[in-house]
Amino acid sequence: MRLADYTDYTLRVLMYCASNPGRLVTIAEIAERHGVSRNHLMKIVSDLGRQGLLATTRGRGGGVQLMKPPQDIGIGEVLRFAETDFRLVECFDEGTSNCAISPTCRLKRLLDDALNAYFRVLDGATLADLVLPPSEAARSGLGVHLRAPPAEMPEPARRRPAARA
Amino acid sequence: MRLADYTDYTLRVLMYCASNPGRLVTIAEIAERHGVSRNHLMKIVSDLGRQGLLATTRGRGGGVQLMKPPQDIGIGEVLRFAETDFRLVECFDEGTSNCAISPTCRLKRLLDDALNAYFRVLDGATLADLVLPPSEAARSGLGVHLRAPPAEMPEPARRRPAARA
Repeated sequence: MRLADYTDYTLRVLMYCASNPGRLVTIAEIAERHGVSRNHLMKIVSDLGRQGLLATTRGRGGGVQLMKPPQDIGIGEVLRFAETDFRLVECFDEGTSNCAISPTCRLKRLLDDALNAYFRVLDGATLADLVLPPSEAARSGLGVHLRAPPAEMPEPARRRPAARA
Repeated sequence: MRLADYTDYTLRVLMYCASNPGRLVTIAEIAERHGVSRNHLMKIVSDLGRQGLLATTRGRGGGVQLMKPPQDIGIGEVLRFAETDFRLVECFDEGTSNCAISPTCRLKRLLDDALNAYFRVLDGATLADLVLPPSEAARSGLGVHLRAPPAEMPEPARRRPAARA
């Protein structure tokens, strides 16, 4: 019972962006920071773009940034989007389940209840709760790249859902 | 985020035994009932024996049975025993984690809290809550094999932690 690496790094990409407010971060720096491949992160950034959570600015000085304030991004919502396999046991998938006792089984309901309790905790937290205030982040080394937005900050119209950066 | 098949079938073995009180059930019938291999179930039955949950009686008319009343077997306890990978994200494994922000990260604490909420629900249920009363189980086809314990029911001294049946 573990989250997919995809989910793990989805959360880290968002946390990294939230920890560096006001500037574009590059996939290269996130990759270096977390020791994962750029290709892996490009897929994640692209998916987060489609989800309306990350915007990509192309070209020199480009990068990605959050499309919403961190306090408006619920962690439960992110997990439901990133984690596709909530088939906790075989019978959760009605299409493939061949469990003979499914109609009278109370296991599914119990595991459903437990999963709901899990998400109630996550739904009570936002991305803002996971990242330190900028001042503390700077001291911890998380936000060492903090700087003012570049003068050539793109107009919103030039932004597009993230594909690659 | 899903339970291992091992955990899924561990629960089903216990539920099957609890649904057939007073008799020894065989691995062969559980395998047939759930469409899984005998080898897979033998490993599970053996592990449940070591855990003190199942007793095996060898020989003709032998089989497995619960070593405790279903109401004394907590589902949270079973899941913690069966499911070994609670490394929800990479940083949960302190031995291999290479996350640079781990010391200041609040993600781990949030996921810990969510997992605790998940287990609080499971800890509130026992095996008895998952199986129907014998009369209903018989109607549903779950307990169709219900019969009185065989006359040659072994003495407790002949039982041993399950290995194979």
